Amino acid sequence: MRFKIILEYDGRPFRGWQKQENRIASVQQTVEEAITAFCGEQLTLVAAGRTDAGVHALGQVCHVDFSKPTTAYTVRRALNYHLRDKAVKVLVAEEVSEDFNARFSAITRTYQYRVLNRIAPPVIDVGRVWHVHYNLNLDAMREAAKYLLGYHDFTTFRDSECQAKHALRTLDVLDVTTEGNYVLFDVAAKSFLHHQVRNMVGTLVLVGRGKWTPQRVKDALEAKDRRAGGTRAPAEGLYFTSVLYEKYPKNFQA
Amino acid sequence: MRFKIILEYDGRPFRGWQKQENRIASVQQTVEEAITAFCGEQLTLVAAGRTDAGVHALGQVCHVDFSKPTTAYTVRRALNYHLRDKAVKVLVAEEVSEDFNARFSAITRTYQYRVLNRIAPPVIDVGRVWHVHYNLNLDAMREAAKYLLGYHDFTTFRDSECQAKHALRTLDVLDVTTEGNYVLFDVAAKSFLHHQVRNMVGTLVLVGRGKWTPQRVKDALEAKDRRAGGTRAPAEGLYFTSVLYEKYPKNFQA
Repeated sequence: MRFKIILEYDGRPFRGWQKQENRIASVQQTVEEAITAFCGEQLTLVAAGRTDAGVHALGQVCHVDFSKPTTAYTVRRALNYHLRDKAVKVLVAEEVSEDFNARFSAITRTYQYRVLNRIAPPVIDVGRVWHVHYNLNLDAMREAAKYLLGYHDFTTFRDSECQAKHALRTLDVLDVTTEGNYVLFDVAAKSFLHHQVRNMVGTLVLVGRGKWTPQRVKDALEAKDRRAGGTRAPAEGLYFTSVLYEKYPKNFQA
Repeated sequence: MRFKIILEYDGRPFRGWQKQENRIASVQQTVEEAITAFCGEQLTLVAAGRTDAGVHALGQVCHVDFSKPTTAYTVRRALNYHLRDKAVKVLVAEEVSEDFNARFSAITRTYQYRVLNRIAPPVIDVGRVWHVHYNLNLDAMREAAKYLLGYHDFTTFRDSECQAKHALRTLDVLDVTTEGNYVLFDVAAKSFLHHQVRNMVGTLVLVGRGKWTPQRVKDALEAKDRRAGGTRAPAEGLYFTSVLYEKYPKNFQA
């Protein structure tokens, strides 16, 4: 029985999504241990996206196959019981057909990057925003963002250790909005390269500060060279917000 | 030289605003120690409102009198330096005239109470929302809220240890709105009784759950008896958001 599981987690106590040797405090390991405590078996969680250390999720989607019959209600309740002291919880559990794959069936992944743009350091949101105390020019950031939309070779904005076969991606959304003292970057694409969102946001903030012109972002993209890109925004401001599956539109919002 | 100081703090590590014997981890004590570290003197901070243990502030307003000349820029910078490891920061410092009193000049105080209304426990917002997993009837809560608006004797919603001389208050705003899975209660009044906001919200949630009718809130208010009131909402969902001063409208928003 395959279950789709939507998770919320705070990135701070974890070393990222992926289970690794000598790195027991990953989100994957933590939830897989809760699964073992629930059903007695060692099962593998497959996630829509592998978030880095410190990155948060409001709607990470995974799937897991249980060998014994159970219900969505039981899965959610039991896992949240075993996760009661952890910074990760199951928002939704749902039985799905075997052809659903959290990673490969995804057609859109969305992230939000949150900047706290004020002089005083964060208090309520410490560890969960990037604090930028410089004035940011929104219009300039929006102009630069337009150059990144669409189908491009994003080599300039991928991590030098990114393992994807190529850097061709289609960026569907890159909205820059404000909410009080927050500047929010909403992005959506079928898939992203390693560190792509943080590298794009870090570069846009350089534009917002007036260090870069919008045109320089266009030139950097066209250079297809990581050394032409701007700085990387820190992990703490990034939220993996949702995953869209063509056959499961009702689960777009976690 | 009198300075107005606007503070943001996370209520979790503090035992409330007010300095008390044997209770050093109050917000007041923490900020007064930063002031002493800055100017060498022991000065008293006067606040617009004394928040309870666990209650957060996005815009608590205080005043303090420095005996030596300084500037708003220096006050903010120096205090935030000395508060760098604390869950309280200075958002704004501003020199004001001697007739400004953070407590007595206030004409409106606003609070927001945040309920996370979903089945899964909070993760990102742990300690900063009240988690209510029951379905809440918004229309019923709004109908009940109308009975509380205006000039009333709020004895039913004051703490039994409230030290105010009488319970007559005018409630100007009590809005119930939603934002995703959050139910937000925005309240405004010239002043509040001890635990008034939390007692009102706790009672409205009983209405939302269907345990109380809206009419029962009206009857409880008219009973002028704490024992007729509903349960108290926990501190962790409450935010002291802003203070309005007639002569200082530009500082309404922190």
